[in-house]
Amino acid sequence: MPSQTPKQHRASDGATDAPQDVRMRGFQKRTTVETALTWVDQNSEIQSSETVALKNTHGRVLAQDIVAPIDVPSFDRAAMDGYALRGDETTGAGDYNPLSFRLLVESMPGQPCDAEVVSGTAVRIMTGAAIPDGADAVLPAEYAAESGGVVEITTAVAPRKHVGSRGEDITAGSLVLRSGRRLRPQDVGLLASLGIGTVSVIRRPKVRLIITGNELIQPDEQRGTHQIFESNSFVLQGLIRRDSGNVHKICHIEDDCSAIKAALVEPGADVILVSGGSSVGAEDHAPTIVAREGQLAIHGIAMRPSSPTGLGRVGGSLVCLLPGNPVSCLCAYDFFAGRSIRHMAGRSADWPYAVRRATVAAKIASAIGRVDYCRVRVVPSEKEAESGPQRTIDIKPVSLTGASILSSTTRADGFVIVPADCEGYGVGTDVEFYLYDPVN
Amino acid sequence: MPSQTPKQHRASDGATDAPQDVRMRGFQKRTTVETALTWVDQNSEIQSSETVALKNTHGRVLAQDIVAPIDVPSFDRAAMDGYALRGDETTGAGDYNPLSFRLLVESMPGQPCDAEVVSGTAVRIMTGAAIPDGADAVLPAEYAAESGGVVEITTAVAPRKHVGSRGEDITAGSLVLRSGRRLRPQDVGLLASLGIGTVSVIRRPKVRLIITGNELIQPDEQRGTHQIFESNSFVLQGLIRRDSGNVHKICHIEDDCSAIKAALVEPGADVILVSGGSSVGAEDHAPTIVAREGQLAIHGIAMRPSSPTGLGRVGGSLVCLLPGNPVSCLCAYDFFAGRSIRHMAGRSADWPYAVRRATVAAKIASAIGRVDYCRVRVVPSEKEAESGPQRTIDIKPVSLTGASILSSTTRADGFVIVPADCEGYGVGTDVEFYLYDPVN
Repeated sequence: MPSQTPKQHRASDGATDAPQDVRMRGFQKRTTVETALTWVDQNSEIQSSETVALKNTHGRVLAQDIVAPIDVPSFDRAAMDGYALRGDETTGAGDYNPLSFRLLVESMPGQPCDAEVVSGTAVRIMTGAAIPDGADAVLPAEYAAESGGVVEITTAVAPRKHVGSRGEDITAGSLVLRSGRRLRPQDVGLLASLGIGTVSVIRRPKVRLIITGNELIQPDEQRGTHQIFESNSFVLQGLIRRDSGNVHKICHIEDDCSAIKAALVEPGADVILVSGGSSVGAEDHAPTIVAREGQLAIHGIAMRPSSPTGLGRVGGSLVCLLPGNPVSCLCAYDFFAGRSIRHMAGRSADWPYAVRRATVAAKIASAIGRVDYCRVRVVPSEKEAESGPQRTIDIKPVSLTGASILSSTTRADGFVIVPADCEGYGVGTDVEFYLYDPVN
Repeated sequence: MPSQTPKQHRASDGATDAPQDVRMRGFQKRTTVETALTWVDQNSEIQSSETVALKNTHGRVLAQDIVAPIDVPSFDRAAMDGYALRGDETTGAGDYNPLSFRLLVESMPGQPCDAEVVSGTAVRIMTGAAIPDGADAVLPAEYAAESGGVVEITTAVAPRKHVGSRGEDITAGSLVLRSGRRLRPQDVGLLASLGIGTVSVIRRPKVRLIITGNELIQPDEQRGTHQIFESNSFVLQGLIRRDSGNVHKICHIEDDCSAIKAALVEPGADVILVSGGSSVGAEDHAPTIVAREGQLAIHGIAMRPSSPTGLGRVGGSLVCLLPGNPVSCLCAYDFFAGRSIRHMAGRSADWPYAVRRATVAAKIASAIGRVDYCRVRVVPSEKEAESGPQRTIDIKPVSLTGASILSSTTRADGFVIVPADCEGYGVGTDVEFYLYDPVN
């Protein structure tokens, strides 16, 4: 799949087909976050569709418009338990003027009712059952007393009252859900009510994780001196699932050119995330391999953390080179990889974090020319007590903000983005605050 | 498990151990929503714990405090690719005053480094590798040029610069995550970095669905006249999953006393949801069976829709009798069953819907004495253009709001709750608006 990025756009921001080898020399010029996001948007094609059994479609994205094949309900039916009768014959009924109707057979849900309601008669009926011929209203059970084949009613009901009319929920032929809709529980129910047992939805992008680093071991392994328990694959699996990606393979490999190359060129992944070895060290092989085997469009981004992020393509896969430092990895995923996966999954590219307005209660420092991802925590407000969802939230940056300090993202309640043209936020500034936790 | 509801509380609101048989007579007195919520809160005990492999703990609720067994990092390590050296020997280095250091062996991640950095020497080092003895700082690669066993540096670094100190992320013995925490992706990563391979989390409550109704068929079945495609099980499965419940069994059964009884008394479920047959019709067997086999604490709630909701216990299971009408079923689940499941799962009982302030743009009608669940949609604001998350949202009720009109919940963007002491909201009222869709 060729890149759709205009050449002049890439050239002007350092995003070229073959970036120079930056190992041990550092990045000469960093791409702006904006340019990198544009590249992601232009290189993340929505996936093809697949047919899925209805019960497995919750949260999936529709790949087809849904046109109702039938009316719902498909016959006039009782909306209450009670008595089907002629509404105009109930006029005047009340506690001091009960009216009597002779009972015919019952109308039971799911079964045809052969009785015809003629003048002065009624049919005991259950919610969901078909309204018998001749009847046009349902008198609720609580306003009726039954005895010896006769029902006495103490209220009036107008014609059509408590009757669910054919097609009142959905009429056959109407467009009920549009392609691109992310299915809510009730949407899946609506499809069920139309008798639709399988649905065409957008395929979830297949994501391959390549975790590099000779020093890394898994948390259930015995640790030797100078070894480090690997955490990025655990963080990434949760984020990828959130973004509707499907982790189809996790490769834990050493910082070895041929192993990294083999894991990169193997077909079958829509997105490949490489954790570690993305920067300018002598052992950072991944950027060179991507440039040689495909296209390294962007390497080095003007942001903190995550500056050593790389973006490119190998074969049919979009490749995101994520820094190995845990916070950089999380941040680079959230800026670029997650966005790509959500695009491919047919979802909104926007961040899946709730946003609140918040007031800065301790200076947030940044520098002109780079975007800052600042972890913050909510602190008790110094203003008068307020309440409700409009109340002011005060935030402070968490004290340790190094790219390796993963606990800064577990102690924080969320983050604030400082744009490239801003030196940071002073106390009292009103900012947007992204919450790490989902709504409840 | 005995009910913890005080007797006088129940008696005063019609929630008694053996409600009268209401079939075909209607509810005499409805329980308030508030009392029903109190009953749910008092009858939903948090589940016991289970041990789960770390990679499967995303979104699960911790059942243990986590105390760090090790320091992270567990040794001083390089935070950048570059050169480990003595920081105070770099003083004065610059573009016009490059300083030279003799290179010793490399320090590679995961491997011990035997070299000792003495005066005038440096060690090439990769991010994550151990700082060799004698060195106290890392000079970044981009400020150094290497040639013939010598590295020339053009900037100074202070001692400790670019060194990740042992324990700077987490110190051994510190409390890192508290019991009750719902695990974020980065929390799972933090546990991995501590070498914790399995975690004790709250068990997800087992939920049994009993779907009753002789008229109901599944969406992939051939429909006969008077039959209806069943939708509630599809809606409920999505909602239960959202609330951390585990649907362990779905029973589709006829409106038959013995079949409903058998499905209710079978042990093994923490929560049993019965859809349909919850009201006052002759075929509404479930309330009587629950009262006979266990306790029917509440039957009939002062709300619309969902008034025929029942709450009780059979054996070890909390039972929620949900009305069969799709909107009533959704609403009763969201008010009571979902709350119970979230309680049991150790999550916040609060609604998992985002809340926004919104302005009523068309009258929302209700009646004193009942809570109304009003589906609303967002309409273009008539006020001046505003933007940002604080902007005003205008809402209108969706036109068809009957309890059977499931499409009202797919055409709506969310809902508004009108409390029992309120007659509704006039145009211009500022209300809380719950959004059906998750944040992106």
